[in-house]
Amino acid sequence: MSMLENIKGPRDLKALPDGRLDELAADIRHFLVQAVARTGGHLGPNLGVVELTIALHRVFDSPADRILWDTGHQSYVHKLLTGRQDFSKLRSKGGLSGYPSRAESEHDVIENSHASTVLGWADGLAKANEIQGRDDHVVAVIGDGALTGGMAWEALNNIAAARDRPLIIVVNDNERSYAPTIGGLANHLATLRTTDGYERFLSWGKQRLQQTPVIGQPLYESLHGAKKGFKDAFAPQGMFEDLGLKYLGPIDGHDIAAVESALRRARRFHGPVLVHCLTEKGRGYPAAEQDEADRFHTVGAMDPATCLPLAPAGGPSWTSVFGEEMVAIGAERPDVVAITAAMLQPVGLEAFARAYPQRVFDVGIAEQHAATSAAGLATGGLHPVVAVYATFLNRAFDQVLMDVALHRCGVTFVLDRAGVTGVDGASHNGMWDMSILQVVPGLRIAAPRDADQLRAQLREAVAVEDAPTVIRFPKETAGEPLPAIGRAGGMDVLHRPDAGHGDDVLLVAVGALGGCGRQAAELLAGRRIGVTVVDPRWVKPVDPALPELAARHRMVAVVEDNGRAGGVGSAVAQALRDAGVDVPVRDFGIPQQFLAHAKRGELLADLGLTPAEIAGGIGAALLRVNARTAGPAADPADTPLIPAPHTAESGTTRTQGAAER
Amino acid sequence: MSMLENIKGPRDLKALPDGRLDELAADIRHFLVQAVARTGGHLGPNLGVVELTIALHRVFDSPADRILWDTGHQSYVHKLLTGRQDFSKLRSKGGLSGYPSRAESEHDVIENSHASTVLGWADGLAKANEIQGRDDHVVAVIGDGALTGGMAWEALNNIAAARDRPLIIVVNDNERSYAPTIGGLANHLATLRTTDGYERFLSWGKQRLQQTPVIGQPLYESLHGAKKGFKDAFAPQGMFEDLGLKYLGPIDGHDIAAVESALRRARRFHGPVLVHCLTEKGRGYPAAEQDEADRFHTVGAMDPATCLPLAPAGGPSWTSVFGEEMVAIGAERPDVVAITAAMLQPVGLEAFARAYPQRVFDVGIAEQHAATSAAGLATGGLHPVVAVYATFLNRAFDQVLMDVALHRCGVTFVLDRAGVTGVDGASHNGMWDMSILQVVPGLRIAAPRDADQLRAQLREAVAVEDAPTVIRFPKETAGEPLPAIGRAGGMDVLHRPDAGHGDDVLLVAVGALGGCGRQAAELLAGRRIGVTVVDPRWVKPVDPALPELAARHRMVAVVEDNGRAGGVGSAVAQALRDAGVDVPVRDFGIPQQFLAHAKRGELLADLGLTPAEIAGGIGAALLRVNARTAGPAADPADTPLIPAPHTAESGTTRTQGAAER
Repeated sequence: MSMLENIKGPRDLKALPDGRLDELAADIRHFLVQAVARTGGHLGPNLGVVELTIALHRVFDSPADRILWDTGHQSYVHKLLTGRQDFSKLRSKGGLSGYPSRAESEHDVIENSHASTVLGWADGLAKANEIQGRDDHVVAVIGDGALTGGMAWEALNNIAAARDRPLIIVVNDNERSYAPTIGGLANHLATLRTTDGYERFLSWGKQRLQQTPVIGQPLYESLHGAKKGFKDAFAPQGMFEDLGLKYLGPIDGHDIAAVESALRRARRFHGPVLVHCLTEKGRGYPAAEQDEADRFHTVGAMDPATCLPLAPAGGPSWTSVFGEEMVAIGAERPDVVAITAAMLQPVGLEAFARAYPQRVFDVGIAEQHAATSAAGLATGGLHPVVAVYATFLNRAFDQVLMDVALHRCGVTFVLDRAGVTGVDGASHNGMWDMSILQVVPGLRIAAPRDADQLRAQLREAVAVEDAPTVIRFPKETAGEPLPAIGRAGGMDVLHRPDAGHGDDVLLVAVGALGGCGRQAAELLAGRRIGVTVVDPRWVKPVDPALPELAARHRMVAVVEDNGRAGGVGSAVAQALRDAGVDVPVRDFGIPQQFLAHAKRGELLADLGLTPAEIAGGIGAALLRVNARTAGPAADPADTPLIPAPHTAESGTTRTQGAAER
Repeated sequence: MSMLENIKGPRDLKALPDGRLDELAADIRHFLVQAVARTGGHLGPNLGVVELTIALHRVFDSPADRILWDTGHQSYVHKLLTGRQDFSKLRSKGGLSGYPSRAESEHDVIENSHASTVLGWADGLAKANEIQGRDDHVVAVIGDGALTGGMAWEALNNIAAARDRPLIIVVNDNERSYAPTIGGLANHLATLRTTDGYERFLSWGKQRLQQTPVIGQPLYESLHGAKKGFKDAFAPQGMFEDLGLKYLGPIDGHDIAAVESALRRARRFHGPVLVHCLTEKGRGYPAAEQDEADRFHTVGAMDPATCLPLAPAGGPSWTSVFGEEMVAIGAERPDVVAITAAMLQPVGLEAFARAYPQRVFDVGIAEQHAATSAAGLATGGLHPVVAVYATFLNRAFDQVLMDVALHRCGVTFVLDRAGVTGVDGASHNGMWDMSILQVVPGLRIAAPRDADQLRAQLREAVAVEDAPTVIRFPKETAGEPLPAIGRAGGMDVLHRPDAGHGDDVLLVAVGALGGCGRQAAELLAGRRIGVTVVDPRWVKPVDPALPELAARHRMVAVVEDNGRAGGVGSAVAQALRDAGVDVPVRDFGIPQQFLAHAKRGELLADLGLTPAEIAGGIGAALLRVNARTAGPAADPADTPLIPAPHTAESGTTRTQGAAER
């Protein structure tokens, strides 16, 4: 039986003698490599925080003390130490979440996996403690990369303002939160890292004091806990102290005793304090330690010995198609530049960066700056392509609207991981973009249905110089090509009613759901229902030919892998209303709920976004429409009312279907 | 003829002898006070930057060099010096914008009035210069308050990373960009302000060198332009130098020669440099200089001698009603706390802050932090009320979604200046909130129609503990009470069809447009069209009683002062579709366009959001609906198509009407 299995919670951890902690750390590393190799997950970040997490749970009393994890992908060790050791279904339906989860444990607080939030949460929790007279501690763990996010700065400024409000910030500095971190802050952290004069002095002082049994440990610590002047004589403290934060560090984040000592000093300090811990991402797993490209940040299931992936990839990914086409465009268009927010490799820009190193900008975890600096680049005569995960563009909504669109800048946003992403849970799904971007005047949105369309529409997008453009596509592989069999306005026709069938339904299938839409049409043909399937290609603005085409059908259905509220279905319906075309519309999309983690395919099935479910929904709706128009009373008041599914919006569910189910 | 009238552009300014510049500054101050007293506008910020702006245009060559203004409300002097001296219609329809405007001048670049954007723009423009081999300068002017915004930090981090890319940041430090600035950065700036050892040394050195005619000015400047070591010996540089920015300052921002000298040094430095200028908001206008509450930041038309407003206020403002009710709620609910983003007075929280000083948090110009720290406060057991202008909540969309809503935090957002605000132009209109917030699961939105409803709904909102709530209301006065004459589900009925009229139209009138909706119904009654007007009170989620009520009418109209895309009209239409109620819907709102500046009333009239225009639109739509259902062919394809207005979305127009016009 391993030591780890005997740790049922922080109490057991505190009972362990100091001398056995390194053995526990080794146990945890072995567990992590074996478990994550089986399921896939965030390996590197968790291997880096084993000792730090042990020290945190020994020094603080969670859950009364709040231990908060920024992004949360480094919380596996925290889970193991707080009673969650069944990793067999990690990130799978019904299994542990890959992030903190309040449903799993009272030790978890923040579920939002977007970076740089933790200091804002910590500031709020510390203020609540102060107002209510509680003396519990608030400890926020944040990576060096996440400090580049604007939210972190806003929070630091507020935290530093209250000199008497206790709050502990642990900077987990691995020099590459996602990739080698750049920027002024990174340079400053590097300076601090090499300022080891103070720690060497401490080490010397500790030995001396410990050799004097009468005064011993408490005196040693009290000497250092509050004596800022004492410290300043040995090490320049830099910008954090300039802002008003007490600075402790740098600390070797893999030396449990050193981290515990620093955290105890921080705990006694009655004010905001920053503990600077140096850690090594992937620590203890040679393949990850040596991987400069940081490919072990997240891994799929793999053989733990060979580090080779178990599941072969099925055809080119959307990401790789985009990456290739960018290299080709870059060769033809010297004005095209690329911007990434600390995710060069995940968004497929590595090849572009190799080919045109002067034309790619990694701005850090800073989506706002990605958008606004793109507006500047465009105004300066270039055409920026900003590649981010769809969910992270939410961070830059105001900048897309007010910097890029108001100024009619030719900037192309490429949204990877749009729609349901699944295993990373609620905050990673890219189900918001086609709704919130609908409001942005002049902005155009493309949703390519296959790899060829992605290439073509990317080229159409970078040709637009007086307005922002957006290309969005999902996770995973681009699938089989889906050829058009005709055109209607700017839309591609993917399917027409069989001979002898009527013009019953116009099905607007958005982007990667094109194939799903065509299959639904084929199923409906078996029920003698004639369906025209169009891929609008550009979903904003609505194609001017759509209202007239809709008017020739008995009903319109819109299928999209986006939230139903305000998405393409709503835009199509509004375009029809504006044209006076009152054909009934039904929209199939993601219900407006936070989705629990599960595989993308499982979620789409649960949400009814499958050909069979869509065909069933369309068939049922058409029956009611036909019954109403064929009957003697055309008054819609005669139709029985169906409860509206989207009004039951709240919380995390995975079983709610689309409309008409 | 004043000196100012002879300045037609920067060239004339450069030709002036140094000795006459103070006279010009006095001319400009006199002009500003007289002109802004007539029209209203941003007085204090512009009086503070007179000398700084003169120096900028003398040292740099706009428009080849880019002089960029953060927020832009301090650009009046810049306008005067770049050929725009007709301030008679400032901020009025057809007159000068109160912000930079590319339509007005090639010297203007950024129109977005949201704070903290300028460094992102500057970084992009500097990168574009570098890639294209241009050696033009980029100069960004930013207030000390705007540096608290996260975007500014993201940009600083990127700017500092490129040691060889020239970019000049001018910090216009008046110690209160909106109000007395707080936070760690403010404390650090205060430290820098008092570090005058270096400047005193410079002053001494300058005198000495100037007393030696042989070497004179050029040598004096070159001695200081690049010698960092020379400087560091005399003054600690703090966090900006830690990040990698060259720091020059502090400079007396009202000493034109000193500012010019610093800017020339900055211009010669081949890398990022920060020039720290100390200025006094309201300088030269005693009433503004002495006003601690910063009431001269923006003024309405007033008597320049007495400083009394000319136009008496017409009844209580929405803001003051909210402020009063917050004080009352605060007395009953010790858990209610308030958050403002550097706008305590403008959002009406001054009285609450006086009554409960420990329960109000001004987070700086940091809406992201306002939202996320509110999530922390709520998780810690309190109920935060976050009061911001509607347009500024866009900055915190991701935080509202992923921190507040995902975690089901009881946080109330109060959105002042929702809908059309008018005179401050495109980026101040609050026309986005009811669309983008539709996608947020669990969030509830209230749009009160009068002061009584605002009080009632604010209390309903702060009673919700497991979900975010939003209250939104417009600028100006709350108007007459609008009593309900009945209820339908949770909705208030404001008007019923006259006796003998049919149930023709269900008119859903959102929030402050309740009175407008009722007047439209009265006009339609004159045409024997029966209209039921409901105020939904809570517009999200759609009231469950609405579909059934809609089904009893021949058509539904929705009127809202929000963008038409994805707004309440779309939500109502989707709720009807989901319930299988296919009654035709028509939506009246703000077309999805950036609106040029004009009075709120003028814009609403231009947009067709008046009782007469709405009644006309409804009447025309109903005629077509009736013709279709009464005629022999019920096929909607027989209906002639009307061009869809919302597909013509682009650019800034003020004349595009709502649907059906």
